[in-house]
Amino acid sequence: MTGAILWFTGMSGAGKSTLATAVGARVSAHRPVEILDGDVVRTQLSKGLGFSREDRDTNVRRIGVVATLLARHGVFVITAAISPYANIRDEVRTMAEAEGIAFLEVFVNPPLAWLIAHDVKGLYKRALAGEIAHFTGITDPYEAPTAPDLDIRTDAESVEQSADRIVTLLQARNLIVPT
Amino acid sequence: MTGAILWFTGMSGAGKSTLATAVGARVSAHRPVEILDGDVVRTQLSKGLGFSREDRDTNVRRIGVVATLLARHGVFVITAAISPYANIRDEVRTMAEAEGIAFLEVFVNPPLAWLIAHDVKGLYKRALAGEIAHFTGITDPYEAPTAPDLDIRTDAESVEQSADRIVTLLQARNLIVPT
Repeated sequence: MTGAILWFTGMSGAGKSTLATAVGARVSAHRPVEILDGDVVRTQLSKGLGFSREDRDTNVRRIGVVATLLARHGVFVITAAISPYANIRDEVRTMAEAEGIAFLEVFVNPPLAWLIAHDVKGLYKRALAGEIAHFTGITDPYEAPTAPDLDIRTDAESVEQSADRIVTLLQARNLIVPT
Repeated sequence: MTGAILWFTGMSGAGKSTLATAVGARVSAHRPVEILDGDVVRTQLSKGLGFSREDRDTNVRRIGVVATLLARHGVFVITAAISPYANIRDEVRTMAEAEGIAFLEVFVNPPLAWLIAHDVKGLYKRALAGEIAHFTGITDPYEAPTAPDLDIRTDAESVEQSADRIVTLLQARNLIVPT
């Protein structure tokens, strides 16, 4: 089966990792899955990189390289990194599609007000207080996708509902076979 | 089929990339192959890293992480990086074997005198003149494997002969099926 990359993008706390895990569990019933989580990648592949635009771009490009390597061999890859800059996301899409790999961009998109209100790690509070430089959406840019394959309002629907919508899309694109 | 990592180690100019290409072509008749070449990895995954011990270790560990990700999904991975330090090679072996991935260390091992005499890129000459800091084997350590799965004397046998010996080993380990 052709490789595929399901690329989540969205701000910190939006629910990317949770959704990646939920979708990964469903897809793995059908085909091999690998999740490249932003935090794990930062440790294993990008230690030493910071959060400047250049370093973020390097990190995202690197995730794209590894995702493409895996997808080339039929793996269904799910990435869950903020990936705030549109042109690097597009660069990765181009790289993947050049190899015949399906690339789906999923915007994990609760409103900023919701993220600030549900600030589990207390990061938004600190960023708003000016204590975190380069915090995406507050002190650093987030370039929302203009034409994502799916827009997921994690504030308005459950993880199960979101995962269902994604699986439905994957079936429609023939990336998993309906059971 | 279980994933496998064929890990070449040896000094610059020893013939790692050439041998990786030759073995890759043979193995790809039997199963999916991916070659992680040292120079390519430096560009795609390790840009910004230098040649200090710490940076070399980070680079090799990173190759190990990506090789393990691929091998986890049944890919036959061939790495061709100098990987001069024994304990990081051992660390990668441990990481791979913990997942049931076969790990074979192949020492690409022409004598230093031969490398200096066949100095295609002129690097040894420059290193011996003191113009390159951190040049493995001259101004930087190379820790030879003490118990490699194979020791390849690229000075004394052809690429075809070396590739034959490696393929024979892979068949003996049931990593490819004899044709």
